[in-house]
Amino acid sequence: MRIILDAMGGDHAPSEIIKGGVKAAQDFDVDIIFVGKKEVIRQELERQQSKYSPSRIHIQNADEVITNDDVPTKAVKAKKDSSMVFGLKMLKEKKGDAFISAGNTGALLTGALLFVGRISGVDRPALTPMIPTDKGCAVLVDAGANTNCKPEHFLQFGIMGSAYIKNVIGIENPRVGLVNIGTEEGKGTGLTKGSYALLEKAPVNFIGNIEAREIPSGDIDVIVCDGFVGNVILKLMEGMGLAFYKNIKEIFTKNPLTYLAALFVKSGLKMFKSKMDYMEYGGAPLLGIDGVVIKAHGSSNERAIYSAIRQAKKFVETGVIDDIREYISRTGEDIIESNEI
Amino acid sequence: MRIILDAMGGDHAPSEIIKGGVKAAQDFDVDIIFVGKKEVIRQELERQQSKYSPSRIHIQNADEVITNDDVPTKAVKAKKDSSMVFGLKMLKEKKGDAFISAGNTGALLTGALLFVGRISGVDRPALTPMIPTDKGCAVLVDAGANTNCKPEHFLQFGIMGSAYIKNVIGIENPRVGLVNIGTEEGKGTGLTKGSYALLEKAPVNFIGNIEAREIPSGDIDVIVCDGFVGNVILKLMEGMGLAFYKNIKEIFTKNPLTYLAALFVKSGLKMFKSKMDYMEYGGAPLLGIDGVVIKAHGSSNERAIYSAIRQAKKFVETGVIDDIREYISRTGEDIIESNEI
Repeated sequence: MRIILDAMGGDHAPSEIIKGGVKAAQDFDVDIIFVGKKEVIRQELERQQSKYSPSRIHIQNADEVITNDDVPTKAVKAKKDSSMVFGLKMLKEKKGDAFISAGNTGALLTGALLFVGRISGVDRPALTPMIPTDKGCAVLVDAGANTNCKPEHFLQFGIMGSAYIKNVIGIENPRVGLVNIGTEEGKGTGLTKGSYALLEKAPVNFIGNIEAREIPSGDIDVIVCDGFVGNVILKLMEGMGLAFYKNIKEIFTKNPLTYLAALFVKSGLKMFKSKMDYMEYGGAPLLGIDGVVIKAHGSSNERAIYSAIRQAKKFVETGVIDDIREYISRTGEDIIESNEI
Repeated sequence: MRIILDAMGGDHAPSEIIKGGVKAAQDFDVDIIFVGKKEVIRQELERQQSKYSPSRIHIQNADEVITNDDVPTKAVKAKKDSSMVFGLKMLKEKKGDAFISAGNTGALLTGALLFVGRISGVDRPALTPMIPTDKGCAVLVDAGANTNCKPEHFLQFGIMGSAYIKNVIGIENPRVGLVNIGTEEGKGTGLTKGSYALLEKAPVNFIGNIEAREIPSGDIDVIVCDGFVGNVILKLMEGMGLAFYKNIKEIFTKNPLTYLAALFVKSGLKMFKSKMDYMEYGGAPLLGIDGVVIKAHGSSNERAIYSAIRQAKKFVETGVIDDIREYISRTGEDIIESNEI
């Protein structure tokens, strides 16, 4: 298996991307293709004095870089020689099995649509991060790709999210919840009411409306919402986590006794922190794209890239895309048409 | 000052409502009018053996109760003798200076619009809870009253939220942030772009787009968003808080050493918990209603009701409604018309 990595995207590129890629190549029985400025990548590999098998690590030159300041739609068209566009084209041409980038999210979405394309029948690909919960993790569909949605998009989000978490995390019969401002069936907007009606008939384990209060509990596996709401959920969880750690740190660094207390609960706090850490969960796949494209967090470090590669490998091996293709085509006939959308 | 309390609304009514009201009457130099089933209220006062001055505590009989299962629009019209409708009408007739209810949120919103009415010039009243932040608190406008908004509503949310937090919490020049999926000016939907343009010219301290990640930091005082997004923010914060406490509790109850550790950090944890506790912050006023109407949390206990009464008193004393009226009328001429909405 060959995983294509955008060596130039992300706050800690290329250094942490390359570290994560080299480590993954050793551990996961995959080939890594770094795309980016050849000399920079080569120098970085030397600087890190990484021990790696040359048969596992490959470099594909790309002279340009799409930055976070670039306007996505313009950048993917103007910067044809960028590491991101090059990587996506390589995926399309089957020169690799998956593409991972920690770069500009909008550009990755636009580029994936343009250069890789959608799975037949999918209306809107969705950005689908894992979020940590009290019992493990859940997927959030959509977390920012689509701010303007229709019920049939939500239906597909539920189907795609289910196929993904079932295959990649191994959750059988994942529970799908629709984010709403009340749990009763009639609650919410035209969008949520219409989506409820479709999801109820879909080949997913739909548990109905959920309130955001229930998300951290871990009792929902696939959290369906539009990209605006999903982005708010994702980022608020990050912000709450940071505020929480800051306060915990202050509590334990007050005086000698609190320092002592920290020793006694160190392992528990560490486990909790790791449970809530998104770096452990890899990146966010663009579900609905006809190829494995994963957006790693912009601030990804070696560990996050390493996790994203493990995730990409599982994604490819388990055939998530074929599952999505099949369910979407079936649902297209059964559900959508019977509802006369 | 006379505060009207819906004695029948909320998960812990009438017991906790009455406890909170009696205590507030002693401490805050206000009269309390309990509205609800006379005999139930009287029995509860006796059962509690509360010591109170009869000149401070009044009872207004209302035979019906609007429950959380009632459909708001129907309930406020059908249950004319309910404690909620009765209380709102008393507010309108100036038989009291503020009305507080922990009952059905939708019914309170509908009833307030119907029986009390809007401040002249306000398009959409907003449900405006305080949310705890790392540096104190912020207000969230809107948290569920309006799921379908236009930029001019967001403009008014920013103005009303500023007037409220300035007067009731004493924050001078409160910072107004627009919840968006990116901080750059051009980000987001038609709604956020249009709202940005209006807020920029408004007589508020607009700091631009914010991401939900920034909310817990306490660097924004007035958080502007539609009621769907606001509801998600409010409830996710609650859910994250609960998940944190659950984990912290588990960490400290593992073995004798962790129990000991808990003793050493007890005061710090307690302070943190109280900082993050919404019960301390009173309820959510319906800003834009031409009268002080406050929605207390459905699970309000004595302390939450007590806080809500303190908040209502401050709301009345500081003249928030006159401030809103003035700013809205000024903005109507200056901002909205110059933007040709």
